[in-house]
Parts: sequence; C-alpha cells; structure tokens
Amino acid sequence: MKKILLFFPFLFVTVSFAQKQDSITLKSFSDEIMLRGNCYEDLRVLTKTIGHRLSGTEAAAKAVTWAKKTLENAGADSVWLQPALVPKWVRGTESLKISFNGNDFENIPLLSLGNTEGTGGKALNAQIVRVPDLEAFAEMTEMQVKGKIIFFDYHFRQDIINTFEGYGDAVIYRWKAVNEATRKNAAAVIIRSVSTGPDDQPHAGSSHYDDGVQHIPAVAIGNLSADRLAEICRNKQPNATLISNCKFEQPVLSYNVIAEYRGMEKPNEYMVVGGHLDSWDVGEGAHDDGAGIVQSIEVLRTFSRMKIPLKHTLRIVCFMNEENGMKGGLAYNDSAMSHNEKHIFALESDAGGFSPRGFGLEMKDSLKLVVKSWKNLFLPYGVYDFEQEDSGVDISPLVKRGIPGAGLLPDSQRYFDLHHSDNDVFEAISQRELKLGAFAMTALIYLVDQNFQSIKPINN
Amino acid sequence: MKKILLFFPFLFVTVSFAQKQDSITLKSFSDEIMLRGNCYEDLRVLTKTIGHRLSGTEAAAKAVTWAKKTLENAGADSVWLQPALVPKWVRGTESLKISFNGNDFENIPLLSLGNTEGTGGKALNAQIVRVPDLEAFAEMTEMQVKGKIIFFDYHFRQDIINTFEGYGDAVIYRWKAVNEATRKNAAAVIIRSVSTGPDDQPHAGSSHYDDGVQHIPAVAIGNLSADRLAEICRNKQPNATLISNCKFEQPVLSYNVIAEYRGMEKPNEYMVVGGHLDSWDVGEGAHDDGAGIVQSIEVLRTFSRMKIPLKHTLRIVCFMNEENGMKGGLAYNDSAMSHNEKHIFALESDAGGFSPRGFGLEMKDSLKLVVKSWKNLFLPYGVYDFEQEDSGVDISPLVKRGIPGAGLLPDSQRYFDLHHSDNDVFEAISQRELKLGAFAMTALIYLVDQNFQSIKPINN
Repeated sequence: MKKILLFFPFLFVTVSFAQKQDSITLKSFSDEIMLRGNCYEDLRVLTKTIGHRLSGTEAAAKAVTWAKKTLENAGADSVWLQPALVPKWVRGTESLKISFNGNDFENIPLLSLGNTEGTGGKALNAQIVRVPDLEAFAEMTEMQVKGKIIFFDYHFRQDIINTFEGYGDAVIYRWKAVNEATRKNAAAVIIRSVSTGPDDQPHAGSSHYDDGVQHIPAVAIGNLSADRLAEICRNKQPNATLISNCKFEQPVLSYNVIAEYRGMEKPNEYMVVGGHLDSWDVGEGAHDDGAGIVQSIEVLRTFSRMKIPLKHTLRIVCFMNEENGMKGGLAYNDSAMSHNEKHIFALESDAGGFSPRGFGLEMKDSLKLVVKSWKNLFLPYGVYDFEQEDSGVDISPLVKRGIPGAGLLPDSQRYFDLHHSDNDVFEAISQRELKLGAFAMTALIYLVDQNFQSIKPINN
Repeated sequence: MKKILLFFPFLFVTVSFAQKQDSITLKSFSDEIMLRGNCYEDLRVLTKTIGHRLSGTEAAAKAVTWAKKTLENAGADSVWLQPALVPKWVRGTESLKISFNGNDFENIPLLSLGNTEGTGGKALNAQIVRVPDLEAFAEMTEMQVKGKIIFFDYHFRQDIINTFEGYGDAVIYRWKAVNEATRKNAAAVIIRSVSTGPDDQPHAGSSHYDDGVQHIPAVAIGNLSADRLAEICRNKQPNATLISNCKFEQPVLSYNVIAEYRGMEKPNEYMVVGGHLDSWDVGEGAHDDGAGIVQSIEVLRTFSRMKIPLKHTLRIVCFMNEENGMKGGLAYNDSAMSHNEKHIFALESDAGGFSPRGFGLEMKDSLKLVVKSWKNLFLPYGVYDFEQEDSGVDISPLVKRGIPGAGLLPDSQRYFDLHHSDNDVFEAISQRELKLGAFAMTALIYLVDQNFQSIKPINN
C-alpha cells in the first residue's frame, strides 16, 4: 500500500507540472492569435476580393494564387501546388415560376442542386405535387407522379440540438429524392432547402444521379417559399414553369495549396491541418470554408512568428473541390501514399467559423484518451466537447487508412442558416470566434506534436 | 464492505432512474420550445414595432404595455404592473468634430455617456490630449490637462477570453475617467468605446459623477475613430468641437411587469425569472435585453402550454431601468420584503441571446453542488459551465439577501461587438440560439422546483 500511496502523488505532481507548462504555452498562443492574429483580415481579402469560388472557376484559380501568397507571407518554409483534376459544374441562368392563385405566375428564388442537369434552357411546364417525405412518396403510384414536379417538403428538424445531426437527417432529400422521383417518371424535383433559416434563401449543395436513372432537374427553394407552396398544395396542384441551364463542362486542372513548417526531430513525419478552398457559387463561402482556410493558415503563422520549434513537420493543406467531388482530398491522399509519407495526425476545420466547443475525434480509443487528458487545458477557452466522432471530408481518405483525425467543432446553431447560401458572407463572421477557433487548432497541434512520443505511433 | 457495495449500486440506480425521467422531461421542453416556441417572434415585435426603449421614454411605456399583453397571451395566471419611479436621461442632439489635418473639421460618430451632462448646446472648443490609461493620466500635471479634452484610449482587452471579464476591466473608463479628469480641470472626456467590435460604432452605457466634482461632458467614440485619433495624437493635440445637449429631466413613473404561474404545493414560495425591459437609446435592445425578456416569457409559456404543474409559484419579472438606475430591481425587492414574500430562487438572463453555455451561480456551496449534480442533464444541450459566479443586476438585491441566484451564461464572444450600440438589432439574433437559452432556463427552473425539497430551504 505504501508504495502505491507514494507513487500516485508523484505521478500527480509530474502531470500537473507538465500541464502547467502547457497551460502557459497555450496562453501565449491565445494572446498571439487574439491580439495579433491575421485570420480575420485574411478572410476579408478572400471573401471580398475573390468571393465565392466553385471548383473549376476563375475565382477558384484566384483563390489558389491567393492561398499560395498568403501562406508564404505567413512564414511557411515552402509552399507548392498539388494538381487535381476537378469537375466543372456550371449553373447558368435559372428561374422557377409558380401560379399560386391559379392565374399569375410568381418568380420564386431557387437554386438548382449541384451536379444536376437543368431543363437545357427550355420551359418545363408541369403541376406540382407535394409530399412530406420519402415514405409518403414510396406509397404513391407512378400515375400520381408521372410528369409532375414533386415537391419534397421535408423540414430540417429543429428539435435536434446538434444541427449537424439535423443536417445528416435532412440532406438525404438533396441527395436521394431526385433518384426516387425519376424512378416513377416525375418531370422534376423541388426540395425545401436543407436550412434552419427563418427566411427565403435557397441553399445549394451537391446532389447526384444513381447509375441508370434519367437526369431530371432538381432545385431547392427557401423555407418561406416552401411554407407558401405547402399551404397552396393542400388544395390543389399548382402549375409551375422551370427553366434552367445547369450542366457539367469539361473537367479543369486545379490545385491543392500545400505549405510546410518543417519539424526539427522528425521532419519526415507529418501533421496535416486544413480546410477547403472551394465553395458553392453563392454568398462568399465565408463560414464554408473560408474560415477553415484562414484558421489553418493562422496555425502556421502562429508557430512561425513565435518561432516555436515543432518535432514533426506541419503541413497546411488548402484542399480544392470538397463541395462537389472531393478531388483535392483524394489527390492529397494518393500523393501521400505514392510517396510513402508518414502522417501522424490530420485536423480539419470545415464546420463554420463560430465559437469552438470541441473536437470530433476519429482515432483509436487509446489515442482518444490521450487527447481527452488535455481537456482541462482547453476548458478556459470554452472548448470542452471531445465526445463527437467526425473529423472532415477532405481528410477522410487519410483517416480511412488509420491516420488519427480530428475536426474542429464550432457552435452549430447558426451554421445551417447560412450554409451554401447568399447568407454566408464575411459579415456573418465574428473576429473573436474565428480567432478562438484558430487558437484551439494551434493548441491541439502543439499538444499532438509534443506528446506524440507517448502515443503509440500509427503506421500507414 | 458488503453493505457499502450493495448500497452504492442501489444509490446509483435511484439517481440514474430519476435523472432518466428528468432527461425525458427536459427533452419534452426542448422539443416544445425549439418547434413551437414563440420567443423569436416576440422579440421581432418588441424590437421592430417598439425599438429601443430607454427608461422614461414613450417607447419604454409601450414596452410595458406589450409585455403585459404578451405575458397574458403566454398563459399567465395573473399579470400586473409594479410601479417604479425611474430617472429620465435625455440625449438630445450631439456632435463631435475633430481637425485631423489641422484645418478641416470632420464629424466623428459619438455617443455621450449615459447620465452625464452635455455642453448645454454650446460649442466646446479645445485641444485633445491622449492618455493610454488611468495610470498615465495620474502622472500628468494639472497644467497638462486643464482646459483640454482628455482622450482615454484604453483598449478592450481582446486577450481575455471571457468578454465579460474584459468588460469588467474596460468599463472602469466609462465609469471613472470623467471623475479623474474633472479633478485636474479637464474640459471634457472622450473614451474609446467599451467595445470588441472591429468597426466605428460608438457604444453607450452609464457613467456617473462622484459627489462634488464638476459635471464635465463625457463621450464615447468607435474603435476605428479611436485608432485614427490615437495615431494623430502621437504628433499633436488636435482641435475639436463638442456640442451636446444631454441632461436629466424629471423622474417618470414607470413599471416592472410581473406575471405569475401559480404553484400547486407552495404557492406562496416564489421562483423569479427575468430580464430587463429597458434598453439604451440606440439599436433595438435585441440582445440587451430583449432576449432575456422574451426568454423569460418563454419559460412561463412552456409550462403553461404543456400544463406542467409546478410546486412553487413562478414569477416572470420584466424589470424596468436596469441600464441607468436599477429602480425596477430595487422596487421589486422592496415590495418582496414589505410583503414578507418567500423567494427560493432567482434567475436572470441579461448577457445576450447567444448559444447558452452554462449558468453563473450565486448561492451557497451546498446549493451549488445540487445544481452541479444536474450537469449531465444539460450537457446534450451544450450547457456545461456551472463554475462562474455572476447572476444578474436586477436580481442582485434579492441575491444580497441570501436568495440563491443564477444567471444564464450565453457564449460571450460577440456580445460586446453590439452591446449598447446600433449593432444590437433583431437581425443579430439567431432563432435557435435564443430558443436554446430559453430551454436552458426552463430546464433549470423545473429542476429547482422539483428538487427544492431536498435543498435546505433559504429563509429570507
């Protein structure tokens, strides 16, 4: 018994001393970022001089050039472009007119779903049939559906507190409804936007066609228009005219932008930190994912400006094409594999620039325990949640290979008010919230870098 | 040993069963509020049809009428007005012109500090002398200060993570600087607004004059103007002209609005839930404190609509005059004392309508432990912080008498970007965040009501 009693206080003192040192270091990162961080100004430039930047567009190419320059200025040891052939989906002009009163047609704000095909510029005239959900649609006969525009009036579930769970529930309609509708020979699909917003913004986002189905048009409308349409559909099937021109053009050569801050002890072992440079073709891509990009750059800038020696090499990756193809994430992973690079950690910020609340952890339980042992270091910064399990889309090919992954978890309440819509602009970003997220990422990377010795190395 | 081993699992099962029941009840509150709550619409009416509502104004009187009607519609058993004589401070017209280049005078956005006196409409022409802080000012001679406008260029400390702590640090300049300046015969005071915002909004808020000092004018300017002024003051003392008309008029009879949802077992024991109805005379008083008002009303509406029987009587109090006098809070406490009313708990929401993160607890440690035992019930709603110790200004007279008090703690990062400024409008409120705060308050009140039997009663 005596031995144990002596042993535990010793352990406690050791841990406590180390944590005190870490606590001081973390505060110095926080001070640096909150007082002298540049991520908010970086984001202003990205959003206000480039704006939205869908893969394959000129704006996306400008964003690549901007990211390279910004990473160089942030103090990277080297910056380079990594090629990725990305799809180029073009929206073109589009309009949806609905006759609510049986006579006049009203223009309704809409967005064709990403990766779908439009009407080829021709007017598609049809009646609208409302269904509340896929289950109700499954019970309808082909006769009820054929030639009609099916309005999937599924609501984002506001009763689910974590909106990313609510998104997972509702996004099925953006992804799947068009395929179900086409199997019963519907003419087109309208979905209620995957949105928590009490407004009329339509929200964009990827859809897809299953193999072999007909490529009918599919569009999203805002919540207020959806409310009106649902009301009118109680008594009749209103007439509508849809004209759209969206389509794929030839793939375009684009790039991930990669920067390194070289490690001193194990320069050939990598920690990846990133977000995605592309956005949908609405708003300014401020939260999705300008925030993740400028926060990732801030991590490197902080270590560089403070001359913090890292053991492992930090790689900032500004991924291209997360939104409609993931070609950048795949290209990075392919390159890492073909060069036999050893990655010890990957962190993504792609859930908005709001106040950080935690990190999702995708790794072995034994590693999760190590990360969770740092919980008290994060608590003074309002970062307390290490129980979620999502990391990020771009790093998912790495994570699937067993590389420990993490994702910044900002407060989720506002995100789907603006996600993929004209609401996602620089003005919706708080300087302090954005910086606090960048701090949390910097702190996590520092702790991973310093403590990796005590973590069983992952071979990949 | 065996007895202990048997005892603990039993206790665990009991606690766990009770918590499971509570967890289900809380989820039903959450569903009710997130899906059918009306606080966001209430706030739209308050902010958009009444707007800002400084004590003593016609708008404040309209807010009283609105609150009474809204509480009646929310299902209160009774609603009444409680008189409070409130100060009436009037801003009047005001302007500040500064000659940055030595010739032309530029208009600078300003707000006279609340409760101060203006120039009486006359032009006050003087040179501006910048000081970084009170310590630097203390070292200046009267000769350096006399007849000058002293610019206290103290920055809101962005390195402090909890902005309410940063506010406590910086607000000293709004409260104290004018008194220090007048003691050295300065002509007037300009302060850098107590603001985290990267913009040029001046922020209002109370100041005061110490007994016996001269009542010189004091105004706040926005951060961007303060930056410019600081820069110019490095080389010279620029000329300025201040004209203002602010002053106190005669006190006005106003009211707290009080509603009851009567308890079944102990109707003469009260739980107070409130916010303040008045605001500063800028913006729309959306976060400060329209949010607290509509959240408090939501607590009552939820219990009433769901027909939840409470043991104790719930009292919603819409306090008047928190901003520049606290007359409502004092009137409520005076009435409670003179009627010998027994209060078991008081909860205030006056820290913004952002995502809730916890509750500040002002009560005995033994009671804190009881509240903290509910922590796991709140965690699924992102409410995890029960370590802070602030409750609220309006309930502070109750808390000082030993009544257990609590304050909703929303995320603090954005609050001082908009606090007391034209930025504090309905559009800065997120429906989900506002409702989630109302839920957290409802849950806390329910748990206090149900578990008070096991809490040692407080006599007052």
